[in-house]
Amino acid sequence: MLNASSLYAAIDLGSNSFHMLVVRESAGSIQTLARIKRKVRLAAGLDRDNRLSQEAMQRGWQCLRLFSERLQDIPQTQTRVVATATLRLATNADEFLAQAQQILGLPIQVISGEEEARLIYQGVAHTTGGPEQRLVVDIGGGSTELATGTAAQATQLLSLPMGCVTWLERYFSDRTLTAENFARAEQAASDMIRPVADQLRAQGWQVCVGASGTVQALQEIMVAAGMDEDITLDKLHALKEHAIACHKLEELEIDGLRLERALVFPSGLSILLAIFQELGIQSMTLAGGALREGLVYGMLHLPVEQDIRQRTLLNLQRRYLLDGEQGHRVSTLADNFLHQLAQDWPLDHRCSELLHSAGFLHEIGLAIDFRNAPQHAAYLIRNSDLPGFTPAQKKLLAILVLNQSGALDLQSLNQQNAVPVLPAQRLCRLLRLAIIFASRRRDDTLPDSILRASGDTLHIQLPAGWLAAHPLRAEALEQESRWQGYAHWPLVIEEAAP
Amino acid sequence: MLNASSLYAAIDLGSNSFHMLVVRESAGSIQTLARIKRKVRLAAGLDRDNRLSQEAMQRGWQCLRLFSERLQDIPQTQTRVVATATLRLATNADEFLAQAQQILGLPIQVISGEEEARLIYQGVAHTTGGPEQRLVVDIGGGSTELATGTAAQATQLLSLPMGCVTWLERYFSDRTLTAENFARAEQAASDMIRPVADQLRAQGWQVCVGASGTVQALQEIMVAAGMDEDITLDKLHALKEHAIACHKLEELEIDGLRLERALVFPSGLSILLAIFQELGIQSMTLAGGALREGLVYGMLHLPVEQDIRQRTLLNLQRRYLLDGEQGHRVSTLADNFLHQLAQDWPLDHRCSELLHSAGFLHEIGLAIDFRNAPQHAAYLIRNSDLPGFTPAQKKLLAILVLNQSGALDLQSLNQQNAVPVLPAQRLCRLLRLAIIFASRRRDDTLPDSILRASGDTLHIQLPAGWLAAHPLRAEALEQESRWQGYAHWPLVIEEAAP
Repeated sequence: MLNASSLYAAIDLGSNSFHMLVVRESAGSIQTLARIKRKVRLAAGLDRDNRLSQEAMQRGWQCLRLFSERLQDIPQTQTRVVATATLRLATNADEFLAQAQQILGLPIQVISGEEEARLIYQGVAHTTGGPEQRLVVDIGGGSTELATGTAAQATQLLSLPMGCVTWLERYFSDRTLTAENFARAEQAASDMIRPVADQLRAQGWQVCVGASGTVQALQEIMVAAGMDEDITLDKLHALKEHAIACHKLEELEIDGLRLERALVFPSGLSILLAIFQELGIQSMTLAGGALREGLVYGMLHLPVEQDIRQRTLLNLQRRYLLDGEQGHRVSTLADNFLHQLAQDWPLDHRCSELLHSAGFLHEIGLAIDFRNAPQHAAYLIRNSDLPGFTPAQKKLLAILVLNQSGALDLQSLNQQNAVPVLPAQRLCRLLRLAIIFASRRRDDTLPDSILRASGDTLHIQLPAGWLAAHPLRAEALEQESRWQGYAHWPLVIEEAAP
Repeated sequence: MLNASSLYAAIDLGSNSFHMLVVRESAGSIQTLARIKRKVRLAAGLDRDNRLSQEAMQRGWQCLRLFSERLQDIPQTQTRVVATATLRLATNADEFLAQAQQILGLPIQVISGEEEARLIYQGVAHTTGGPEQRLVVDIGGGSTELATGTAAQATQLLSLPMGCVTWLERYFSDRTLTAENFARAEQAASDMIRPVADQLRAQGWQVCVGASGTVQALQEIMVAAGMDEDITLDKLHALKEHAIACHKLEELEIDGLRLERALVFPSGLSILLAIFQELGIQSMTLAGGALREGLVYGMLHLPVEQDIRQRTLLNLQRRYLLDGEQGHRVSTLADNFLHQLAQDWPLDHRCSELLHSAGFLHEIGLAIDFRNAPQHAAYLIRNSDLPGFTPAQKKLLAILVLNQSGALDLQSLNQQNAVPVLPAQRLCRLLRLAIIFASRRRDDTLPDSILRASGDTLHIQLPAGWLAAHPLRAEALEQESRWQGYAHWPLVIEEAAP
């Protein structure tokens, strides 16, 4: 049952937009109740002397009046309001803040760039998986934050006074997308980054995670183009060329780019290009959360777990009353199969992790109904927020659980980009077999089966007499060899000589 | 976490099929884990002297070997196996049962027709809503059960020795669908029912509920034809004419009739026609469960609740961590609106119940994700088993929660058969308004609004100054009047004079 004491709100008064996030805590995890965003574009109201115009302030106050109605229902101690770059910079910030605090009935903290970077890092750490040393990049409207760290521990926090709104006003003020404008924007960004590049690189990172609208927009563009989700320098260059071909900002059109992101997309892109080049970034993925999530998790005092994926799996288990023992049984068995085939079908660590997760979650659809449970499972996985899994990985998980039994939808396995098609097919085959063997829900009835493969042909050797002693599973295996056969995946079931 | 002690199984050795149902109890409700069905057609193996053929017994034993593998994992005290008409009748039933019990390692109870009717009644009572006096009809392979009662209390239990398999062998043995065959089959069924008709009618009933494959098939045929789900004598007659036009059983083709049900459909139809005519039944709906559900609920000792819908709503609340206070707030407010409009927009009790349920469940989609929550809510409602709601009501609930905010999908409101289009639209409008007014999640911020309607135009009068004092909801109402306007539903928001 919900009551006010489980509600938390985080507001940030950004340079481009004001955002409010309302969540409730439930069973140790966070459920989003509302996200309200208003494009206030405060930074555009700064004049040359860094004075905020009256119009910009009015836009901001009007937005806060809307937020305040909703805020009244949330305990003040569970609400945090922060302001960032533009209000750090504005010489008349006090005037804006005095009125704003009166409207909200709450204190507003103008946070430093380093504090902003710290909160962003925390938001990423709580929502984005992996034990690796990471670099976090967040391009805001008026500043760009960079942070490195491992798990909950940030090791470096930097904030640079460049953002997609300020770079728009400064380098694309004529609203044309010329190579020259891009070059000047990139050059200026590079000049900002270069002094801190060595310091960042000294620390090093294994993965690079991007937050903010620019990276979100890139993600959406790649999904629309059917590309894999890694952002690379090549892809950024191609998008810049495409933008230049559109010539005018108002004529910019890219599949997957939403209108509301278009205005500040080229300026954000130029900053990201400079960051990639100066820091030698190979690839970047989208973070699951940033500043607002950092604020919320900070208030909740939830520990950052080393393994966010594991936390996600356990959260789903709790939420959908998943039979964890059975999930574990199927996962372990699938893993065992994978190991037996290590020579014949080499599948990397990434694959085995996804197989583990698919095995653990395969019954999640039962929470909705027994009928069409695999479809329900795919729906839940596709549509739930799964911190620690990238969108492409979520898609593959959904496809694997959809294909857990019955007729195979081969098309779907070809329509994912998390891993190449052949490994995806093999994961699918092993998952299905593990589910059949584990269907008794008991460890002591699992056979000592021996798997080997030659090319696409998979052989399972069972102990002598096993099939006759287990008619239900024998029937299922026989049917399964037909299903896999239809997909041109030969599956041979045999028994050892008695 | 699941363990064996929460598993229950029910097996019935029917005259047409053997069924196994495996469920687990979780949080006071039942989750189906497996339904296994094999068409053994035992009744077809009875000769004129009611001796079961060896072939039929072999088919039965083979099926039980499959079931037994799964059964071993379920505590014996949580398993019930019953046999019905054919094994009541077979002179050599002992031979079959001795071997069958050895295969299962469990006792098999051959239950009497009255006990079968009692279990069917319990299965219906636990899964089908409504406080009314009901008549339950279940046409099996070798017998037909009839029961009357209210809530958990059956008042009459009858079993007649006619079923869709025996009637097939007796009246459609030449496998032709002539008017003569139907006439003889109906006549024979009428002769069976007539002696008990007075006794049943003396008790009376307000609703009539049908279980079994024949009624399930009729339901599917009506869905395929886009008709409403009530089974009426007219519809049965039309289907009989259609069947006769197909002439041969093997050429029978009706949209929505599945192959596996086709063979015994005409014989079941003839029995149902006789029941409708002899008992003067106006309309029948499909039950949510029958014999196997009766067995399972019997083992679980769950109380039959008077109001199954309420139990269903509370189960969903628990399962999806629904904010029950907010659901109640929206329901109550929508109900208040409905009452204010009692004169202008008369909506019957059925409508107000559905509005109540939609209000209570509207946030269920948040369990999946905040993004697209209304779509998720509709998906969950469409695909979950909701005891007490008919398929058409489920569909309307899904459509109402889908249309809870934002752009309206008018088409969907026209594509449901639970209530006429105009009431459905009005329920939708009131639900949306209740959600907006209740969005603060506090009772003390609900305005004393006055609603009245003239035709399609809905007027809401708010207290003086309310809009200015509540800008977020004022904005939402203004937007809402645009959404409703696009649908040609004029919505006028006004304030009382100060």
